[in-house]
Amino acid sequence: MTQKVDSIILARWVAPVDAQEKVFDNYGVALTDGNIVALDTHKNLKQQYSANHYYELPDHLLIPGLINAHTHAAMNLLKGFADDLPLMTWLQQHIWPAESKMMSDKFVYQGTQLAIAEMLKSGTTCFNDMYFMPDMAAKAALESGIRANVGLTVIDFPTAWAKDANEYIQKGLAVFDNFKGEDALSFSFAPHAPYTVSDDTLKRLGTLSQELDLTLHMHVHETAHEVSESIKQFDCRPLTRLHNLGLLSPAFQAVHMTQVIDDDVTLLQQTGSHVMHCPESNMKLASGICPVGKLTSAAINLAMGTDGSASNNDLDMLGEMRSASLLAKVGSGDASSFSARQALNAATLGGAKALGIDNKCGSIEVGKQADLCAINLNHIATSPVFDAVATLVYSATRDQVSHVWTRGTLQLEDGDLTRINENDCFAMASHWHDRLLKELRD
Amino acid sequence: MTQKVDSIILARWVAPVDAQEKVFDNYGVALTDGNIVALDTHKNLKQQYSANHYYELPDHLLIPGLINAHTHAAMNLLKGFADDLPLMTWLQQHIWPAESKMMSDKFVYQGTQLAIAEMLKSGTTCFNDMYFMPDMAAKAALESGIRANVGLTVIDFPTAWAKDANEYIQKGLAVFDNFKGEDALSFSFAPHAPYTVSDDTLKRLGTLSQELDLTLHMHVHETAHEVSESIKQFDCRPLTRLHNLGLLSPAFQAVHMTQVIDDDVTLLQQTGSHVMHCPESNMKLASGICPVGKLTSAAINLAMGTDGSASNNDLDMLGEMRSASLLAKVGSGDASSFSARQALNAATLGGAKALGIDNKCGSIEVGKQADLCAINLNHIATSPVFDAVATLVYSATRDQVSHVWTRGTLQLEDGDLTRINENDCFAMASHWHDRLLKELRD
Repeated sequence: MTQKVDSIILARWVAPVDAQEKVFDNYGVALTDGNIVALDTHKNLKQQYSANHYYELPDHLLIPGLINAHTHAAMNLLKGFADDLPLMTWLQQHIWPAESKMMSDKFVYQGTQLAIAEMLKSGTTCFNDMYFMPDMAAKAALESGIRANVGLTVIDFPTAWAKDANEYIQKGLAVFDNFKGEDALSFSFAPHAPYTVSDDTLKRLGTLSQELDLTLHMHVHETAHEVSESIKQFDCRPLTRLHNLGLLSPAFQAVHMTQVIDDDVTLLQQTGSHVMHCPESNMKLASGICPVGKLTSAAINLAMGTDGSASNNDLDMLGEMRSASLLAKVGSGDASSFSARQALNAATLGGAKALGIDNKCGSIEVGKQADLCAINLNHIATSPVFDAVATLVYSATRDQVSHVWTRGTLQLEDGDLTRINENDCFAMASHWHDRLLKELRD
Repeated sequence: MTQKVDSIILARWVAPVDAQEKVFDNYGVALTDGNIVALDTHKNLKQQYSANHYYELPDHLLIPGLINAHTHAAMNLLKGFADDLPLMTWLQQHIWPAESKMMSDKFVYQGTQLAIAEMLKSGTTCFNDMYFMPDMAAKAALESGIRANVGLTVIDFPTAWAKDANEYIQKGLAVFDNFKGEDALSFSFAPHAPYTVSDDTLKRLGTLSQELDLTLHMHVHETAHEVSESIKQFDCRPLTRLHNLGLLSPAFQAVHMTQVIDDDVTLLQQTGSHVMHCPESNMKLASGICPVGKLTSAAINLAMGTDGSASNNDLDMLGEMRSASLLAKVGSGDASSFSARQALNAATLGGAKALGIDNKCGSIEVGKQADLCAINLNHIATSPVFDAVATLVYSATRDQVSHVWTRGTLQLEDGDLTRINENDCFAMASHWHDRLLKELRD
């Protein structure tokens, strides 16, 4: 007797992202009710299960859905708006003025929708967002079916979302209450950065995050300037200050960390904090190089993110894995540093651990939810294949992502989004593009 | 009266890669007999010309065909064969043993065919090759219609191609004679590297290159180890040694140059030598960072290459442009360094200048041959478009390349190769993959 399941996916290779870092040949999975119920050979799956849907993927690598561990999704509408500029010129003369003219519920809602379309199409099944109007990001994520961790942003200056730290926190808590219980959503407090949030506010967020069991998501040590200013003002490095305020713990996500000394490594290690590595943004803004080899050697959990589209300029986690591996090697002078497998681990399970959702996703394991991504390696640029994971990281592009499932729901089939109309996305992008140019002209 | 032409291409944007670095809206070109006869607005083109073929590319950016200024094309068959290894382990324990087992006319011929398919599909219309059996690379290039500069490799140890420097030179000259006069082909002497070719041989190549008007193509300053060994053995840096031997001139192509001091800049500048920048290979092998900002500031011509597929791992010049810009910024600490436009310049006109063929290609100009590439920016990941060149370099992938022409011949149409059967390529890749694994097992 065979057991009935919803779907069986038969792939050429499966990289479950387990402790052994194995890649299985001619393997597949069976799914029911959004969960993975079997990971086995084609033969065993066919013998033991019968399914409503069969997906034959004879040239494909099946991996856990990619987790974009740090982004500002709605900034997709500002992609390519200002490039090749020094960081402060970019922010102060281009990005902040544009945001101040454009910021609204609709801007964030539609910008996030556009970002979700790009992410699903390129294999990302979960994103960790930090932006204004987090209710709009949560709404867009929920409607699409993608998994999201929504940052409840807190910053010590007024924006269209809130006027002061107190209001950011109150409005953030209201968003959290409003969406509580949604399986696809989780939340973090997201204090923007050490240089934009006061000690008092940080302490309060530390307490609240413990009380409410919320993670903390924060830009830390993005640039050398940030570190030197902190030493001037607080007589210590930002990470030390955050530790003194009681923020570092396994619930803390330190984004960027391009400036790392041994004391920082010790602090991250001892507190069980996570590092969200955003190599392309760090390169593009000339921020520095996060020493991922040193961090992983110290058993610090590493996640990977694209940062926002305005400083990357895409949400392509395949490209980010490649950049991460290449940058780690040249940055450390060691060609064996940060292998393709380590990159894949950071881009999947590492992200799930950092977000505290690795009980649900991040690897292909029986009992986890079916967040999955298949990449078609039958492409001139990915032939021959000696090692499917190396091919994925070093040779494949996002446009080879063929199938994506979020919690068992098929989101991408043979490269086509099943639930999102791409023409609607183009229309939104065009609308906001024209409006921004008009606003800046007027 | 309208003038009759072969083809008119009407693009959304044209980036001709001229001195002004302009991007033209709603522009296009007219082609006849493989040459560009007009670059103008849609309106003017339609009024002044009538064509046998019209290509309407309403969402596309038209650029000069990309020039891969340094590769080992046939190594496509070893793509992904050995990754995440230190340079000497990679070479001595993996690549060289594999090459010694596989090297043959057929290996090079078919490997080059596979590489050409990948290059044409990703917008490259010219490649600068350095490998064994250069007659086979020339044959494969000629049959495909792609433009190639074929390196006549010289190295002071025996391989399947030749037994000593003298034989490398004699066989190289025979290849040169055999293909002389082919418009799509040009040739360089390609002494492998300062540490593998003797002073006597280098002097002889210097003389021969002048007599025969051939360029010189050589790995130089790839690693710090190469430089320190040269100082031990020759009491000077490799570039200085090459200069003392009379090799540096506008005919000299220095590949890699990750180790650069001010004296090197002066030498390159004074002699008019070119630098072939291969950022992804330099990153992957942890070789170092070529200071492209410093070189371009000194008005040294910069070309761009992927290096061979075994150390990249692809022949994707779009990806290479992105890596080059990102690496230049983080390497120099200056986010304004090496803009998207500078990357495009190096990947097109810079390559043509280095190869001495900028009278024929490298930019979209009336009178040049029609080596062209169109990229479809109507993609979720490249919407919106504020600046088409920034979008190309920072957001687009090779799979958005839609149309390619080499000397006026359509090679790629809506992403499909017109003259190469992809299934043949897959079969070749599979054949050599299986054979290599069998050889290594036996």
